Amino acid sequence: MEKTKIKIGIVGGTGYTGVELLRILASHPNADVVAITSRSESGLKVADLFPNLRGHYDGLAFSEPSVEVLNACDIVFFATPHGVAMEMTPSLIAAGVKVIDLAADFRIEDMPTWTQWYGLEHSCPDIMTQVAYGLPELFREEIKQAKVIANPGCYPTSILLGATPLLKAGLVSFDAVFADGKSGVSGAGRGAKVAMLGAEMSESFKAYGAAGHRHLPEMQEKFQKATGQAVDLTFVPHLVPMVRGMESSIYMTLTQDVSEAELQSVLEAAYQDEPFVDVMPLGSLPETRMVKGSNMCRIAVYRPAGGNKVVVSSVIDNLVKGAAGQAVQNMNILCDLPETTGLQQVALMP
Amino acid sequence: MEKTKIKIGIVGGTGYTGVELLRILASHPNADVVAITSRSESGLKVADLFPNLRGHYDGLAFSEPSVEVLNACDIVFFATPHGVAMEMTPSLIAAGVKVIDLAADFRIEDMPTWTQWYGLEHSCPDIMTQVAYGLPELFREEIKQAKVIANPGCYPTSILLGATPLLKAGLVSFDAVFADGKSGVSGAGRGAKVAMLGAEMSESFKAYGAAGHRHLPEMQEKFQKATGQAVDLTFVPHLVPMVRGMESSIYMTLTQDVSEAELQSVLEAAYQDEPFVDVMPLGSLPETRMVKGSNMCRIAVYRPAGGNKVVVSSVIDNLVKGAAGQAVQNMNILCDLPETTGLQQVALMP
Amino acid sequence: MEKTKIKIGIVGGTGYTGVELLRILASHPNADVVAITSRSESGLKVADLFPNLRGHYDGLAFSEPSVEVLNACDIVFFATPHGVAMEMTPSLIAAGVKVIDLAADFRIEDMPTWTQWYGLEHSCPDIMTQVAYGLPELFREEIKQAKVIANPGCYPTSILLGATPLLKAGLVSFDAVFADGKSGVSGAGRGAKVAMLGAEMSESFKAYGAAGHRHLPEMQEKFQKATGQAVDLTFVPHLVPMVRGMESSIYMTLTQDVSEAELQSVLEAAYQDEPFVDVMPLGSLPETRMVKGSNMCRIAVYRPAGGNKVVVSSVIDNLVKGAAGQAVQNMNILCDLPETTGLQQVALMP
Amino acid sequence: MEKTKIKIGIVGGTGYTGVELLRILASHPNADVVAITSRSESGLKVADLFPNLRGHYDGLAFSEPSVEVLNACDIVFFATPHGVAMEMTPSLIAAGVKVIDLAADFRIEDMPTWTQWYGLEHSCPDIMTQVAYGLPELFREEIKQAKVIANPGCYPTSILLGATPLLKAGLVSFDAVFADGKSGVSGAGRGAKVAMLGAEMSESFKAYGAAGHRHLPEMQEKFQKATGQAVDLTFVPHLVPMVRGMESSIYMTLTQDVSEAELQSVLEAAYQDEPFVDVMPLGSLPETRMVKGSNMCRIAVYRPAGGNKVVVSSVIDNLVKGAAGQAVQNMNILCDLPETTGLQQVALMP
Repeated sequence: MEKTKIKIGIVGGTGYTGVELLRILASHPNADVVAITSRSESGLKVADLFPNLRGHYDGLAFSEPSVEVLNACDIVFFATPHGVAMEMTPSLIAAGVKVIDLAADFRIEDMPTWTQWYGLEHSCPDIMTQVAYGLPELFREEIKQAKVIANPGCYPTSILLGATPLLKAGLVSFDAVFADGKSGVSGAGRGAKVAMLGAEMSESFKAYGAAGHRHLPEMQEKFQKATGQAVDLTFVPHLVPMVRGMESSIYMTLTQDVSEAELQSVLEAAYQDEPFVDVMPLGSLPETRMVKGSNMCRIAVYRPAGGNKVVVSSVIDNLVKGAAGQAVQNMNILCDLPETTGLQQVALMP
Repeated sequence: MEKTKIKIGIVGGTGYTGVELLRILASHPNADVVAITSRSESGLKVADLFPNLRGHYDGLAFSEPSVEVLNACDIVFFATPHGVAMEMTPSLIAAGVKVIDLAADFRIEDMPTWTQWYGLEHSCPDIMTQVAYGLPELFREEIKQAKVIANPGCYPTSILLGATPLLKAGLVSFDAVFADGKSGVSGAGRGAKVAMLGAEMSESFKAYGAAGHRHLPEMQEKFQKATGQAVDLTFVPHLVPMVRGMESSIYMTLTQDVSEAELQSVLEAAYQDEPFVDVMPLGSLPETRMVKGSNMCRIAVYRPAGGNKVVVSSVIDNLVKGAAGQAVQNMNILCDLPETTGLQQVALMP
Repeated sequence: MEKTKIKIGIVGGTGYTGVELLRILASHPNADVVAITSRSESGLKVADLFPNLRGHYDGLAFSEPSVEVLNACDIVFFATPHGVAMEMTPSLIAAGVKVIDLAADFRIEDMPTWTQWYGLEHSCPDIMTQVAYGLPELFREEIKQAKVIANPGCYPTSILLGATPLLKAGLVSFDAVFADGKSGVSGAGRGAKVAMLGAEMSESFKAYGAAGHRHLPEMQEKFQKATGQAVDLTFVPHLVPMVRGMESSIYMTLTQDVSEAELQSVLEAAYQDEPFVDVMPLGSLPETRMVKGSNMCRIAVYRPAGGNKVVVSSVIDNLVKGAAGQAVQNMNILCDLPETTGLQQVALMP
Repeated sequence: MEKTKIKIGIVGGTGYTGVELLRILASHPNADVVAITSRSESGLKVADLFPNLRGHYDGLAFSEPSVEVLNACDIVFFATPHGVAMEMTPSLIAAGVKVIDLAADFRIEDMPTWTQWYGLEHSCPDIMTQVAYGLPELFREEIKQAKVIANPGCYPTSILLGATPLLKAGLVSFDAVFADGKSGVSGAGRGAKVAMLGAEMSESFKAYGAAGHRHLPEMQEKFQKATGQAVDLTFVPHLVPMVRGMESSIYMTLTQDVSEAELQSVLEAAYQDEPFVDVMPLGSLPETRMVKGSNMCRIAVYRPAGGNKVVVSSVIDNLVKGAAGQAVQNMNILCDLPETTGLQQVALMP
């Protein structure tokens, strides 16, 4: 059987989501990366920047962005800073290319909100109707129809997956949801910042962004979209001294007297056919290492001491299910491939 | 000026609180450690077990517990597993010795609650009237009068210090307080457990004890004692891949419309004379490395997006303010020394 | 095309080499793990012990070792402590099963040496003639013919690959080779030991085994076997505060005036057809993260300041090329499969 | 008894050696830091840049360098990049100020060598006669007489202390000394570099600088100065995924048949009166955590398998004995204070 090859372009790609995309695509049977662009690194072989790729992509070098080359692709991924994808996307979709943006250009439908948090005017608000929010477990049908995928933020992925089924079922209050998120440092990207030096972040833990983080409005909008109702969400992210991994503990209040087993059932039912969401057995708790390098989200639910509060713990690898893996999952959907194609790597443990 | 020396005995001391106590006492001008007991390591020099102590305590070796030696001390610290201190304390206080227990034998006044969580019958419930809960910032007067100090748990130290002033001031609701705690692995002690191996805990983050943790009833009782009112507290501890340090993010709901600046003022007023609690400036957030090796607790408060929720982030070094440092602070109070004696080490950063 | 399935048994498998073997075999197209034995964990599902495997091996549980089941396998891996494989191997090979031992039972041909270092009498010295030392890059032909494979130690893998070509070429002296090895903590195994606790090994670095390490006689024998001459090797291992990865810096003295470029050529020539040894370009140096999770060994060579000394730096993932990956590479050779089958995972970076 | 206060100026001080100097001086009974200069951070309080200092140095802010202020100091420390101290030192010593340079401006006496490795012309070669190399254990008498102290590099400190006694005693060959050094990432400083990001250095180990490192000529010169003979030294530094700590394994060849116990005796005799060098008991090995935050160097010696090779393992905290602590030790000597003043902190373990 001959494999259909998907012609793939990557814009940007000198950061961590870029190298992770290349790592995953290297073992994807249908992927053919035809171009990866970078103005700053043009001419450099990808394996010279990311030596883990030595022996893979031997002919592939970063190149100047070329409209001609990108227009000839089936799929173009943007692994760029915010604001780049929106400039190039309209002409790409006009040329019949499907776009998956790993940055935030298309994550928020409400334009004033987007502008408020990202400090830019959106250059193509009119194409938002062709955009789907790329969280397949909640919005698979929209993704199938879309021309542009807004690949979700890492925190939103872990928190939306953890809390949505209980909210949708009406079992927990919409008035007070607290999400305490923790991320490994790769989430901060490959930019050289003093605060992200190994000598600064190692052996330390901190909250950040308590005054407001860009993933908050994204989650507010998508919770509402998924449940039909506004959620009063408080979100504080934290930095964990590790490279990869994200855990979110979500605190909610029951609206009725349901047992832990019933809460468990609701989550299991929601994800029973999902290959990338694993509801752990009652009584267990996920660890980020259980998903390291894999596209899985693992979830557990508790009703502490039989009270009226609920705790959900949700873990992902921020670079895989929280970024590049989910992007490939979206590509598989767009290309009508089995959704797990190229994404069945087992987590690295220990 | 000749320094008054305090004759100190340490029971147990082969664990992390033991070595930390020795580290701190090594630079305490009034401390004279006359005995450190350990049945399993009797005869071994302390510096052979803990080579950081080489050059200090050169004559000191672990010894079999001796009633005679301990009775001749001014202060006896218990750095033992739960259940040991309560057996030896009555005779020690009868001999005029003051006891500081770093374990949990005296932390909970309500005996049925204690038995429920620790699985033991308490052997000396009658002496609880002579016990003070050793969190000086909340219970200093009781400590001064006490014969036995229940040195607080690490999570309770960080969470009680962070939330009590706002609760006492009536600014936040008692009906829903969520405390998301994170601890470095030294909190799990020096026992050999697979789950605490470096190869297991490194590069991973997880919640644990979501079904119930022994520090929960301790906090419930002390919040009530400090505020006069029961608090509905949800507490989930987490394990951070680092050795030392603890951060607690505490989520509360405002009962009235007070500004962030007013919340800040309440905290600053509560701790203005406290040498070991530092309310950080508005807009900043503490990091655990800012207290590593020091007896400080650093706190910040936020009212995210001007809503009706409040977030407090509170950090300590779990082995210092969360254990051995606080024990020495209590010793200073009991011995009528300046409370900061021997406790002014600057945190190690980076 | 139907894939030939290899019936695989794993004896032991509750340690890190066991779970790594399962991780690798999960994506091996020809592997069919029919049994994994463990006396202590019999009845437990593998995915309950190692949750990274959830969703893979769903029917597989640890079982009591059964002669019948193991005799029906094509390949049996031993991931046991030293001394187990030698008891079971003779009957297995009599039944036509090929054995790959990840422990040390067959690594040293010289029986008195083996007994001296492992403290046991060898139970089947007579089958040593059917054993090959499983370092394919040096001993591939022997492996093809063998019934039993002694999978090499992790340090020997990195050091033999790094130094052998230069020794064989006669460019460096056999009289003084210094190998300074560094390993992540997973190399110490999954046993609960105080010294391997996260709170002990994190943020610390140390030499160990300077008086003598079991991998020394293994390397001495294999250097001699590969080069025909005895090497005076000094070897000191060190423990690095990380989970996976091994680097060896090997210091040698030139016997003649050859340039760095010539040294490079010798290494490149030696490994030009090897899929799992990557000689890095002159001027670069490997990092252990460049091979994390992959079966690669990456090597660089230097002649510092043009003097008569040579330095080789060689990195592997101690659990992959240093253990489970190399074992699967040996299985591929034994089963006449392409040697890279199931082993082309890209290293996880960052 | 009134304490004599030393008026101290610090030039630079926004890096890790700067904050470490402040941490140590905070508990030095004779230290009075009157100025700390930084052009880039002028006006910023030191405790705002380094929050571990909150509650200490409350009035101290970074200021523009002022000749008047610095000339009025007793001691001026330079914690600047290379090339700054040499510009300001001549006028300072003319004003009677003693200078301790934590950078490399005065570390190498041989000016062509210095220029070759640092790429600068030296601006004040004539004052080299007033400079001492600040390794007190080897050059204490010179330090007492000097006006300028070249505070040693971190690698040289650990390696010179480890190897010099055996070389001086003539027990090991000068023809082949191999020093394999390993440093925590704080050694790379507080500059924002991609390679030093937490996401890059965590969970990885690598050699660097194999082609040549600036500490090599420094060690070559000082070995010769201390022993009277040139040493053929090969030095390869490595980066360890931890913040603080440095281990050097030094490989040498015996010139005669001396026992391990005799080697031990030579080291013990060399350091018997030294408060900051601890020769560990035969059979033990130092770990970097045994010196974390302290000014100690701990050393062990081995003669593996009774052969003709010797291994010395030497550990320091690169920021203390390898930088700021040693600088304060030198200050104590210059100011005729007991050498251990303010330097008796116990290492933080765990």
